[in-house]
Amino acid sequence: MKLPALQIVKIGGKILENAALLAPVLQGFAELEVPAILVHGGGKKASELGDRLGTPARMVDGRRITDAATLDIVTMVYAGLYNKQLVARLQATGINALGLTGADGNLIRAHKRVVRDLDYGFVGDIDAIDAEGIHQLLTAGFTPVFCAITHDKQGQLLNTNADTITSEVARALTARYAVQLLYCFEKPGVLLDPDDDTSVISELSFEQYQHYQAQGVIHSGMLPKLDNAFAGLRAGLQEVRIGGPGALATGGGTRLKL
Amino acid sequence: MKLPALQIVKIGGKILENAALLAPVLQGFAELEVPAILVHGGGKKASELGDRLGTPARMVDGRRITDAATLDIVTMVYAGLYNKQLVARLQATGINALGLTGADGNLIRAHKRVVRDLDYGFVGDIDAIDAEGIHQLLTAGFTPVFCAITHDKQGQLLNTNADTITSEVARALTARYAVQLLYCFEKPGVLLDPDDDTSVISELSFEQYQHYQAQGVIHSGMLPKLDNAFAGLRAGLQEVRIGGPGALATGGGTRLKL
Repeated sequence: MKLPALQIVKIGGKILENAALLAPVLQGFAELEVPAILVHGGGKKASELGDRLGTPARMVDGRRITDAATLDIVTMVYAGLYNKQLVARLQATGINALGLTGADGNLIRAHKRVVRDLDYGFVGDIDAIDAEGIHQLLTAGFTPVFCAITHDKQGQLLNTNADTITSEVARALTARYAVQLLYCFEKPGVLLDPDDDTSVISELSFEQYQHYQAQGVIHSGMLPKLDNAFAGLRAGLQEVRIGGPGALATGGGTRLKL
Repeated sequence: MKLPALQIVKIGGKILENAALLAPVLQGFAELEVPAILVHGGGKKASELGDRLGTPARMVDGRRITDAATLDIVTMVYAGLYNKQLVARLQATGINALGLTGADGNLIRAHKRVVRDLDYGFVGDIDAIDAEGIHQLLTAGFTPVFCAITHDKQGQLLNTNADTITSEVARALTARYAVQLLYCFEKPGVLLDPDDDTSVISELSFEQYQHYQAQGVIHSGMLPKLDNAFAGLRAGLQEVRIGGPGALATGGGTRLKL
């Protein structure tokens, strides 16, 4: 049976914070002819707000240590400010957006990360995605806009990485949809030369990825993103792309293949 | 035809900000045997955050002048912090809460208040409630939790009084439901003596209300609330009550009648 298409788009932080980059993304999103889901975080803005409130960000390996004050801050920025701005802007384009945390409708249940060497505080590791619930919202004509907040179903909100939410939601929906996933960030794709935006790798196999990684061509922040993306392909996603603000409209960027 | 019952509860700011007052409200809410909607604001917390961020509240006749910075603050506090805390806490009681602004699903469309003597800024006056959309969410088993933010469907979020959202949503649903409305605040009801919590007026007719108002027994902040409540009764609400944190569970408070 041919599954219906579903487009999932993760918007990176630098796009969220830049109106000139965000506009083409939302425009491309509005022009999609298939059901879609948007996922976003907003870490840079949360860090700025934390600085202003005397709660500076404490990051370890790119992850935010989330004490109670920090949880309030990320909840305000992700679920309040950015989520509702995105919903309002999508509504203006005719998209029936519905802003969500994992607590809303109990769509994403997580548990507070177990303390081993380090206590991350109110950081959530995902236990369950309610794929049926998300499917019902899509069927009702809503476009879910998820932010990087989940809950534990015991009353506790939890800060959860937006890339992780994206890949977990995408995988959970593969039984019902042919899922196409786009990680949308400020660069036009995975670059051979990080200083040359025309050096986009248009198609990247897992073998090539390992080769580039060994050569040091692809490194640092791109690695967890690509590891995650290849894992998604192996888990049954139909397509995974990494592209820039125009990638939804043009189909450009870097297409991954196994 | 007998309409199905629907309970709408507006939680006042002092209850939101006090865990000991909030707990019995959420408990009573969880024990309801009919579909329900929760509405909340969070003005005091927004003012506190504004003070910390160097954007102190400017109030005129109890209404917040909402410039761009203030809109961000109320969006963060109402739609982010309080809305998601309430959703998570309700989820823990088994209620399938779904947190909403008027932008989500385009459920409440408003326009920026027309400037006459005073420019309120990004304050929204309601144009349309999507009663059918809210009905569909209720039918799907969700418990909507509305905060005091709407939008203009042109991409602009707007700050909208929570009491107004409550009464407008309640009225819009009278065609489909026998709506019972409870304004839940820190006092046990409308009091004959504001310093004596045992002086609750258990039933208040519009004639008595006018009488007490003329005598100065009922005054100031209670007047717009009661005017609004009586208008709701005239517009077809089945019941309007004003009560304290325990009023959902006990059925107490002040019951209004025409």
